[in-house]
Amino acid sequence: KKFRLAVIPGDGIGKEVVREGMRVLQHMAEESDGNFSFESDYFPWGCEYYLEHGKMMDEDGVEKIKDHDAIYFGAVGFPGVPDHVSLWGLRLAICQGFDQWANIRPVEFLPGVPRRLNHPNVDDLNWILVRENSEGEYSGIGGRNFAGRGTGNEVAVQSSLFTEKGCERIIRFAFDLARTRDRKKVTSVTKSNAQQYGMVLWDEVFARVSKDYPDVETDQWLVDAMAAQFVLHPEELEVVVASNLFADILSDLGSALAGSLGIAASANLNPERRTPSMFESVHGSAPDIAGKGVANPIGTIGSAALMLDHLGLKDEAVQLNKAIEETTRQGILPRDLGGSFDTVDVTDAIIKNLAKV
Amino acid sequence: KKFRLAVIPGDGIGKEVVREGMRVLQHMAEESDGNFSFESDYFPWGCEYYLEHGKMMDEDGVEKIKDHDAIYFGAVGFPGVPDHVSLWGLRLAICQGFDQWANIRPVEFLPGVPRRLNHPNVDDLNWILVRENSEGEYSGIGGRNFAGRGTGNEVAVQSSLFTEKGCERIIRFAFDLARTRDRKKVTSVTKSNAQQYGMVLWDEVFARVSKDYPDVETDQWLVDAMAAQFVLHPEELEVVVASNLFADILSDLGSALAGSLGIAASANLNPERRTPSMFESVHGSAPDIAGKGVANPIGTIGSAALMLDHLGLKDEAVQLNKAIEETTRQGILPRDLGGSFDTVDVTDAIIKNLAKV
Ligand SMILES: CC(C)[C@H](C(=O)O)[C@@H](O)C(=O)O
Ligand SMILES: CC(C)[C@H](C(=O)O)[C@@H](O)C(=O)O
Repeated sequence: KKFRLAVIPGDGIGKEVVREGMRVLQHMAEESDGNFSFESDYFPWGCEYYLEHGKMMDEDGVEKIKDHDAIYFGAVGFPGVPDHVSLWGLRLAICQGFDQWANIRPVEFLPGVPRRLNHPNVDDLNWILVRENSEGEYSGIGGRNFAGRGTGNEVAVQSSLFTEKGCERIIRFAFDLARTRDRKKVTSVTKSNAQQYGMVLWDEVFARVSKDYPDVETDQWLVDAMAAQFVLHPEELEVVVASNLFADILSDLGSALAGSLGIAASANLNPERRTPSMFESVHGSAPDIAGKGVANPIGTIGSAALMLDHLGLKDEAVQLNKAIEETTRQGILPRDLGGSFDTVDVTDAIIKNLAKV
Repeated sequence: KKFRLAVIPGDGIGKEVVREGMRVLQHMAEESDGNFSFESDYFPWGCEYYLEHGKMMDEDGVEKIKDHDAIYFGAVGFPGVPDHVSLWGLRLAICQGFDQWANIRPVEFLPGVPRRLNHPNVDDLNWILVRENSEGEYSGIGGRNFAGRGTGNEVAVQSSLFTEKGCERIIRFAFDLARTRDRKKVTSVTKSNAQQYGMVLWDEVFARVSKDYPDVETDQWLVDAMAAQFVLHPEELEVVVASNLFADILSDLGSALAGSLGIAASANLNPERRTPSMFESVHGSAPDIAGKGVANPIGTIGSAALMLDHLGLKDEAVQLNKAIEETTRQGILPRDLGGSFDTVDVTDAIIKNLAKV
């Protein structure tokens, strides 16, 4: 089968790591004996494009990539371009344009990586964060009384929007995902004691939906206690479902505990498959190390594994993840993990290990 | 000088740890050669009081303790009493009644405690979280369209309120606190890329206020990256100032990294000293271990140290903190820190160590 990929390297190290991810994917296709192949269209969107054209992507950008099977994304952000421009102008435009309402972020403790977490079973830790990706604290609702400006009396309101439908679909998604794992367990994270509207609605939907999954164990935590639980009892975590903001915080925390943000993979899914889904590492464009060839490609290559899985190439996804693990086990580590290997070396090792696993 | 304390042990282990904290304070007063003494009034408020009287505290509760020099608080929460009742009915009623708008929470890596964080300088780590304690994400503004109930179309809005005055006073407080430390540095935490109203107002105020403190180094982080920074580069942290919710999450994270929530102390301050301030551990009432005498008293005794400092007994505050450190260094640890010492034993050791330090 031939898959059409829309490839958006973006800025900074985004370009370097997407190049490596594509190299891995092409290699796997070549080795597949004609079983599958990729046709890739590259889009030069991002901050440099913005500085030249005054826009992060083409006006009809979403239209241009709507028939692709998946989107492979690097990172955006560049000195001189305000965060909200780069973010809303491209990444969030795609997430929202394609209703990619489920974001999944595995937290993996890769072997051989020096880790900041002391834990008796540190090598076996892994769990998945399921992030609500369409509403909640990122709704963009609010305002400021500009009339108050300069008087010292200014006030700003920032509102989160939680819909029953939005809560229900992400919570069901988490339960369905839990059923595919050995230990079937979903942990829900809110802050209902301090936020009595949105978070309580979420809790109620969680209680209702969980009745449809009597085979799945459940657990409910407050976000502050959950941050502590990530440190103290991560072995209790399997599938963790949380709002847009809470999962954002917890996913960075999880990958830091596992060693570095550079290893964190992510998938922005439209689970109904009406529109393409997007696969990207969690880290940013890191202008400080861009162009040096030292970026960690693991998050982006891991995101390619999530993409393979989404495209139905389940065995290949497993194989790629194993090749990544084998590579870190061999101590072939980029600089952010305490090693001295370059982006290309790490990728070469992963490609070589594909044959071994 | 005689200090009048309002003592509110609350529920569960709150009672056990406050008893120990008071034992330490009385001991220090006796040893002070008449330099200072405490007169304590006990208030039996909390969930058991609620189950008997239908209210968490007396109607004129705030009035009853308004002339005390400080409030020493245990913990509230009890099975059968909804969280929002116990919380808003007592702790938040006091915080708000007395405009205790600054919450400080030191993160201390005590010696001798098994810690979950691998870090080359783990024994030297310590920083202070300054939490905005009066508004932000805890404003309680919002609602649900109950008309939508049962239709699957329900929607909830939860709003955060940030005022320029509220931001300014807590940010100034953080800068003033930074000036009292060896390394003068303030780190501000927001999420301005996703929340463009409240958080951007905070950032603007931070930029403005920082100009008045050219001697203080500054740093600004997004909350997700800051959670990772707690794990990866905590040696960079000195005074960290954040909104109500973000500091809540980060303070639990900090104490978990340092070993347990049981060691975390906290002060809810009215910095203008118009009204009494409140000192309490961060942990909850822990009904599961209540009555067994095994609770960790360190968070509450550390909060007594914060109280001594606030009452002007600076040397005594330092002495008490040193006695706590000496105790953990000797391996006299309660169960949550991996030891086998009871609440009373740990306190006895701290009292004994007061003479040594
Ligand atoms: C009980 C809860 C509302 C409270 C808070 O979030 O403020 C607690 O977590 C704390 O840290 O003091
Ligand atoms: C760039 C930022 C808005 C974004 C987010 O919070 O969603 C990032 O932190 C992420 O984790 O994808």
